[in-house]
Amino acid sequence: MKQTITEKIFSDHVGREVKAGEIVRCEIDMIIGNDITTPISIKAFRESGAKKLAKPDNFAIVMDHFIPAKDIASANQAKISREFAYEHDLKYFFDEKDMGIEHALLPEKGLIVPGDVIIGADSHTCTHGALGAFATGMGSTDLAFAMITGTNWFKVPESIKVILKGKPGDFIYGKDIILELIRRIGVDGALYKALEFTGDTVVYLSMDDRFSLCNMAIEAGAKNGIIAVDKVTKEFLADKNLKHEPKFHYSDEDANYVQTIEIDVEKLEPVIAFPHLPSNGRPISEAAKMDLKVDQVFIGSCTNGRLSDLAIAAEIVKGKKVARHTRMIVTPATQKILKEAEKLGIIDTLIDAGAVVSNPTCGACLGGYMGILADNERCVSTTNRNFVGRMGARTSEIYLANSAVAAASAIAGKIADPREIN
Amino acid sequence: MKQTITEKIFSDHVGREVKAGEIVRCEIDMIIGNDITTPISIKAFRESGAKKLAKPDNFAIVMDHFIPAKDIASANQAKISREFAYEHDLKYFFDEKDMGIEHALLPEKGLIVPGDVIIGADSHTCTHGALGAFATGMGSTDLAFAMITGTNWFKVPESIKVILKGKPGDFIYGKDIILELIRRIGVDGALYKALEFTGDTVVYLSMDDRFSLCNMAIEAGAKNGIIAVDKVTKEFLADKNLKHEPKFHYSDEDANYVQTIEIDVEKLEPVIAFPHLPSNGRPISEAAKMDLKVDQVFIGSCTNGRLSDLAIAAEIVKGKKVARHTRMIVTPATQKILKEAEKLGIIDTLIDAGAVVSNPTCGACLGGYMGILADNERCVSTTNRNFVGRMGARTSEIYLANSAVAAASAIAGKIADPREIN
Repeated sequence: MKQTITEKIFSDHVGREVKAGEIVRCEIDMIIGNDITTPISIKAFRESGAKKLAKPDNFAIVMDHFIPAKDIASANQAKISREFAYEHDLKYFFDEKDMGIEHALLPEKGLIVPGDVIIGADSHTCTHGALGAFATGMGSTDLAFAMITGTNWFKVPESIKVILKGKPGDFIYGKDIILELIRRIGVDGALYKALEFTGDTVVYLSMDDRFSLCNMAIEAGAKNGIIAVDKVTKEFLADKNLKHEPKFHYSDEDANYVQTIEIDVEKLEPVIAFPHLPSNGRPISEAAKMDLKVDQVFIGSCTNGRLSDLAIAAEIVKGKKVARHTRMIVTPATQKILKEAEKLGIIDTLIDAGAVVSNPTCGACLGGYMGILADNERCVSTTNRNFVGRMGARTSEIYLANSAVAAASAIAGKIADPREIN
Repeated sequence: MKQTITEKIFSDHVGREVKAGEIVRCEIDMIIGNDITTPISIKAFRESGAKKLAKPDNFAIVMDHFIPAKDIASANQAKISREFAYEHDLKYFFDEKDMGIEHALLPEKGLIVPGDVIIGADSHTCTHGALGAFATGMGSTDLAFAMITGTNWFKVPESIKVILKGKPGDFIYGKDIILELIRRIGVDGALYKALEFTGDTVVYLSMDDRFSLCNMAIEAGAKNGIIAVDKVTKEFLADKNLKHEPKFHYSDEDANYVQTIEIDVEKLEPVIAFPHLPSNGRPISEAAKMDLKVDQVFIGSCTNGRLSDLAIAAEIVKGKKVARHTRMIVTPATQKILKEAEKLGIIDTLIDAGAVVSNPTCGACLGGYMGILADNERCVSTTNRNFVGRMGARTSEIYLANSAVAAASAIAGKIADPREIN
């Protein structure tokens, strides 16, 4: 049977050849909860009468949304996960001690392994598909089921083949490619499908770009995003202490796809998604002409809070100053990224330009803390969702972009084209 | 007439010799508002019909309590000050662009000058007395009066002479001295008085120690804390671009004091103030025997978030790990402090030990954000107030200490004596 990479991962886990549409039950290699979702899973776990996790080392709790606690409610919420982690002596519990956004931290820690089946009670769990794994978001009770049994049920998704063509030009990143894709197919364009990214562009994409690309698969409604392992992936994995042996799967050449989409990446210019949907992408050159004043620029999140995002931003703001009426908030995705950015002088460059650099956290992206928008404020953000009120007041506006566009807009004080900043 | 330093500062401002008890009106050299208090001042300013600030360059707004905004309410609150700052083209407006806690940031910027009269709508404005200035906290409407007129009314305070004797021993800082003083005189022991710190200990105290000492004058009810300029002060001022020429005032030897208190600093051991008053100080050796488990350690605030506090903590945690059940949150008081700590490797050391280092902010100290306590949690904090619910849940407990005690407690996971950690 000819199979896609997603079908192959499930086949490997089920122990027989399976195809898209089949409903299967399989072992989960990594179950991920965060400070918001885990308490609900813990409640379901306890109500089931379970005493022990099926596989404690296949469960990671990453406290990233509301800690260090922003208020009493979030402190009490965090306490539930903390106590559960201590009670079950969890090996993979990350809180203030080793802070990071789950989807950036776990790959760093070698806990995301190619060929794995991964679920997380967080919609952006699909990020991990960038490492050639099947990864998807689930509800907290689904997570509880996996905590108790070590397994879960899946409908093996059909796949959409996204063929990326050509070498990306200046200021074109994974973010622009995914915004362009969502612009074309819409926020439900890949409903319950696997978005498989292929084509000769892929080799030019750094792991950071790939994480960004797969991260927003969910914004097209996809079940998962996936990129097969290549030399770039292997280089990323080289210094990781992987949790177990990786398995590299590759789609057969004539595997079955429900749709094929081609994107001419070489011709792309930076894309910025206007309020209030990620599918409202426009070329930056068009947006930059509209004189859209910006109150806040946010660079961070599981989409674009990685080292390259910080480096790109620093390169643009170096020796310049954030505009008087604009504030720039930079939130590195993990402590490792923060420390590397320090060493490279990126943090100092950002601060000197007038940015504030926070501790790692999901923070502003979800309207958690660390940069919430006031009434009628406009924000250029490297995050993944620009829904009404996502980052604060219902009258605020979010424009999604890559970190070059975000940094250029901070300097200009309005939505700006990074190619025009000098 | 023989005068105290506080009387001399007022005499200089009024243009005649004044003495304690007199009610005087004088020019204000620096008026300070923050993101919580300024909106109230702005409201009063507008309601008065005023259009212009009497002296725009004598007014500083420092946004430090709730930004980057933790929620919509704080975002909207911040917006009021931002718009006022832009409207009046304020020279001294500090937000995300140059973040810092007002009482650490303004001295750094050369905006606190020896001999000045300074008011701030923040109770810890008394911090600035460490630079030989008169500085006190006032209400937001009092601030508005000064914004409109450039002046305000004062009752010249009587002075208490605090004579500090001997060289401080290991792990004894300004914080221990002020906690010892408050332990002895109580939280109303210096009501509306000037606390003037003198004695042979002073020369051993760094500016960081002196800021810490004067900062908590208000916790004994004092109107101001003050230390005359000496070589340590002058060294601190040497690289500052002062707003105007400083004036050095010194108390006359036989000036009038309502009380004299001697503290034998040489014999002091680190002091930790138990819940729920700063006056509940106990020697750390006694507290360390009580096996008091700690959930959170917080190092930061206008009291102890300066470079030396971070360095002291780093020295203790270096090569060690924060205890499993404990979290450690470090909040540098300004961007300059953060950057210097970076360069010295302090930030990396703290992170490697398991601390999270945040952006500069008042944050957790006032229960703002960045480390709020859950129900029944215990915190060792380098801050200034351990009132019920100050940092979070009403059932939480705060123990005030210097940063060595705080860091030692993070490693031990319980209240610990830094002399015992190795």
